[in-house]
Amino acid sequence: MRLRLMEATVDCLVELGWAGTTTTVVSKRAGVSRGAQLHHFPSKQDLVVAAVGHLTERRREDMRRAAADLPETGRTRAVLEILSQQFVSPIFFAALELWVAARTDAGLRAEVAPLERRVGRETHAYAVELLAIDESRGDNRRLVQATLDLLRGLGLAASLSDDTKRRAAVLDSWAVVLDDELEVS
Amino acid sequence: MRLRLMEATVDCLVELGWAGTTTTVVSKRAGVSRGAQLHHFPSKQDLVVAAVGHLTERRREDMRRAAADLPETGRTRAVLEILSQQFVSPIFFAALELWVAARTDAGLRAEVAPLERRVGRETHAYAVELLAIDESRGDNRRLVQATLDLLRGLGLAASLSDDTKRRAAVLDSWAVVLDDELEVS
Repeated sequence: MRLRLMEATVDCLVELGWAGTTTTVVSKRAGVSRGAQLHHFPSKQDLVVAAVGHLTERRREDMRRAAADLPETGRTRAVLEILSQQFVSPIFFAALELWVAARTDAGLRAEVAPLERRVGRETHAYAVELLAIDESRGDNRRLVQATLDLLRGLGLAASLSDDTKRRAAVLDSWAVVLDDELEVS
Repeated sequence: MRLRLMEATVDCLVELGWAGTTTTVVSKRAGVSRGAQLHHFPSKQDLVVAAVGHLTERRREDMRRAAADLPETGRTRAVLEILSQQFVSPIFFAALELWVAARTDAGLRAEVAPLERRVGRETHAYAVELLAIDESRGDNRRLVQATLDLLRGLGLAASLSDDTKRRAAVLDSWAVVLDDELEVS
């Protein structure tokens, strides 16, 4: 029931945005009584923060499976593709709603900022692992950070219009840059 | 009076977010009667789209002045600094509110998407000019696109917490990459 509520929350954020996501709408969509919803998540804030946090974890498991068969040739581009998918997925758009709402809501920000830092650290570690680099070498650490900032920027662009083709071209170029600039162990 | 209304709109978006920005709040803040406000901008959508569009233009004039004395040494890093300021400015955070609201509002998106494309094209042309490159050479065009996507991602990160130090380090590295990878004329 907790999971159903969290999944309905992310669906609502994606379809209706922050303002349209009320606990009433979520309960109805999840087919859960108001009482049960309030028992699991006393406020909209509790519900939304838990939902985005939990589903981000699950999304990472999907990525882990996708990473199982990375090609030898064109590995960097394939890694960028896997990471990029995380930033154009429904869970990213749901997180974006949460993030932007938190900018002007101090109470929400107090919960969202640590969640974002944790997710950021985990995604960074995962990118390092997929790229199979030693991040203490050369400028590797900053290059990975720049890659994740780039992917976040591409995700934001994708939220407004479908720019799949442009994104693919930018990532093609970025893969070449990384292959040039990363110091491999 | 139009300008005062538009400036008050951006202030409201930055401080109160999309939902908190109502035409009533904006009129009061601008010291303009409801009737006069409705005369200039019949709806919240008209007001907000006009405000973000107009103030983005004015922001570009500021950048133009900042670009007047770019150093010979460290020019690329200085260009990144000027561009980056655009993505951590109040007008960017106001545009972010508009952008995210437009994702789930088809009527708003119909106006915001063309505005965003225009601003994107202009910023791209401006970046090419500042970097003093020929974008038909090598992979220059994609590298500029990637730079602007990176800056957008850094701006989004800056909306939630002050990460000035991290951003500076990423831009330091990125300047080195651009100097390596851009083909200069």
